[in-house]
Amino acid sequence: MVNVNTLTQFTKSIFLSIGFPESDAELAATILVNADLRGVDSHGVARLPGYVRLYDHGRLNPTPAVRIVHETPSTAVLDGDRGVGLVVGPQAMQVAIEKARVAGTGWVAVRNSNHFGIAGHHAMLALEHDMIGIAMTNAAPLVAPTFSLDKLLGTNPIAVAVPARNEPPFVADFATTAVAYGKLEIAQRKNQPVPTGWAQDADGQPTTDAHAVKNGGGLLPLGSDREHGSHKGYALGAIVDIFTGVLSGANYGPWVPPFATAGFMSAQAGVGEGTGHFFGAMRVDAFRPADDFKQHMDQWIGAFRNARAVEGKKVLIPGDPEREMEAVRRSEGIPLIPPVVQSLQELGARFGVTYNH
Amino acid sequence: MVNVNTLTQFTKSIFLSIGFPESDAELAATILVNADLRGVDSHGVARLPGYVRLYDHGRLNPTPAVRIVHETPSTAVLDGDRGVGLVVGPQAMQVAIEKARVAGTGWVAVRNSNHFGIAGHHAMLALEHDMIGIAMTNAAPLVAPTFSLDKLLGTNPIAVAVPARNEPPFVADFATTAVAYGKLEIAQRKNQPVPTGWAQDADGQPTTDAHAVKNGGGLLPLGSDREHGSHKGYALGAIVDIFTGVLSGANYGPWVPPFATAGFMSAQAGVGEGTGHFFGAMRVDAFRPADDFKQHMDQWIGAFRNARAVEGKKVLIPGDPEREMEAVRRSEGIPLIPPVVQSLQELGARFGVTYNH
Repeated sequence: MVNVNTLTQFTKSIFLSIGFPESDAELAATILVNADLRGVDSHGVARLPGYVRLYDHGRLNPTPAVRIVHETPSTAVLDGDRGVGLVVGPQAMQVAIEKARVAGTGWVAVRNSNHFGIAGHHAMLALEHDMIGIAMTNAAPLVAPTFSLDKLLGTNPIAVAVPARNEPPFVADFATTAVAYGKLEIAQRKNQPVPTGWAQDADGQPTTDAHAVKNGGGLLPLGSDREHGSHKGYALGAIVDIFTGVLSGANYGPWVPPFATAGFMSAQAGVGEGTGHFFGAMRVDAFRPADDFKQHMDQWIGAFRNARAVEGKKVLIPGDPEREMEAVRRSEGIPLIPPVVQSLQELGARFGVTYNH
Repeated sequence: MVNVNTLTQFTKSIFLSIGFPESDAELAATILVNADLRGVDSHGVARLPGYVRLYDHGRLNPTPAVRIVHETPSTAVLDGDRGVGLVVGPQAMQVAIEKARVAGTGWVAVRNSNHFGIAGHHAMLALEHDMIGIAMTNAAPLVAPTFSLDKLLGTNPIAVAVPARNEPPFVADFATTAVAYGKLEIAQRKNQPVPTGWAQDADGQPTTDAHAVKNGGGLLPLGSDREHGSHKGYALGAIVDIFTGVLSGANYGPWVPPFATAGFMSAQAGVGEGTGHFFGAMRVDAFRPADDFKQHMDQWIGAFRNARAVEGKKVLIPGDPEREMEAVRRSEGIPLIPPVVQSLQELGARFGVTYNH
């Protein structure tokens, strides 16, 4: 178990070591550790070596000059200047919130960015302003659309955060695939099969091989197969790709650069610049009085949370599991698996920062 | 096979018979037949008797005074005055488009409406303005959230239409469930089982019984079960419910009135007014030049359509199947099953309108 503050300080030191300004290093570290706190381990400090590799490959600018390249009263396009999405994302969300203050809603497409961590973090920035927050990103192609042998979409997550009054907020944050790739990685490490419906093999056939995606196969869209609606999951991932990539001028589809490898230099090989994000903020009182809205959200949440459930289970509100996990880990600390601890120790050694576990 | 014009004229006559103004009757008939043309038979003229029943029960106002009850530069809330969604929807979409002209985007939540037909029709109204169109609606509860025994959500569809240049537009239009309820109805008529993953029984267990939803069971969210991401489909349906119902002041969750039965009078028993919709319009040139955007959409579409496919299949772009169906049916006519023909003949007899099949 690692203490939250210890892990945040270490992570911040690494970002400082590759040239991040103080406040950006603090922000990036906080968001990464936030993912671990919320139980989204695949998007937490396990990714820190990846961000450093992005820097090593010249794909990550530690001191980006993020700028608005186009805007209307309710929209903006931001050029992330090859900054990390962990830092560019909150800036873009801030622009969306400012737009929403004046125009009722704000919508910001971002190009020339990199991986932004957990989508939910960005969406939740709207909550304290009594706004609904929305965040999406595209990502390197791992997913085969329905009937496709080629991988053309990333796991392309969508997050939507909605404020309530006495209840905690509704926070949905999900990949548009049957499962996140991290679940296959866990099975790979244990050398276990995975359920059918998670991945297909190189011939587009259902498989239980956790290694299939690395061997010519692909992750499956939410819905898994045509009979269970995979064309809907494919459409959803496609919508995220279009909003984040095509609207912004970033790369899209098969051209989205991988998270942290050298092979792909977007400016040369791509159809746009870097990775794309899309953010939204909607003032709830642009529709009805905020108190009214939040009271009805409490009633909505109550109706779902108190529904009759399958024996031994309960009906969860999106955001419940992550919030419960955060309460536990904030007091007990964050468990890290040995390979992650080792990779952090290696980073510490490289930059002369002590890693205390 | 019924000729498109014949069917449209008949449908229009029925709407005129229950007091619709000329232009509203024309619009409502066109949208219903449009669903049949696009192959979404469950949302076409098969629903006409249901709209008449709504009128009979006093739940549908044939001459609604639709009005804006609140607005900001980029948002509006419309009260549909118990009009039919087929007519209220296009008016709301028009408001969204006007807002987008000035503010870059427009977002309109609608309360006090009724069933609006196929979501895709409304979203596509944005295309001719070089805008992305979005349409959602909530609906009576048929869907059990993950682990729930109670039905709390409708099939809550999402439609997103995106303009391209030389390619036909991208038009996604899908229920947030594994399948539409119409697929269970087809199996019911044939007395056939359905695949597991479509529905659960009264104990929340997987079932192949096509009648399960009527007997205490529920439709399953997209993803089917927890292992395959049903909590994501549930979150998606919930987001639609919150945007359409809670933002607008309509009913939501278990309180959404059924399509066309007498039991539920929203003003008394509900938590809001009628059924809720949510519409969006985003000017693509609020983000980047329209020509640029549409050229990249062509490239996006080309990359997906030309992907390597499973033997005997091809990778489809959302909207392809419906457009191909429309081309066929516009020339060959629309096939109607005997029960639908009979219900139309009965309507014709009641209102003294000849039904020519």
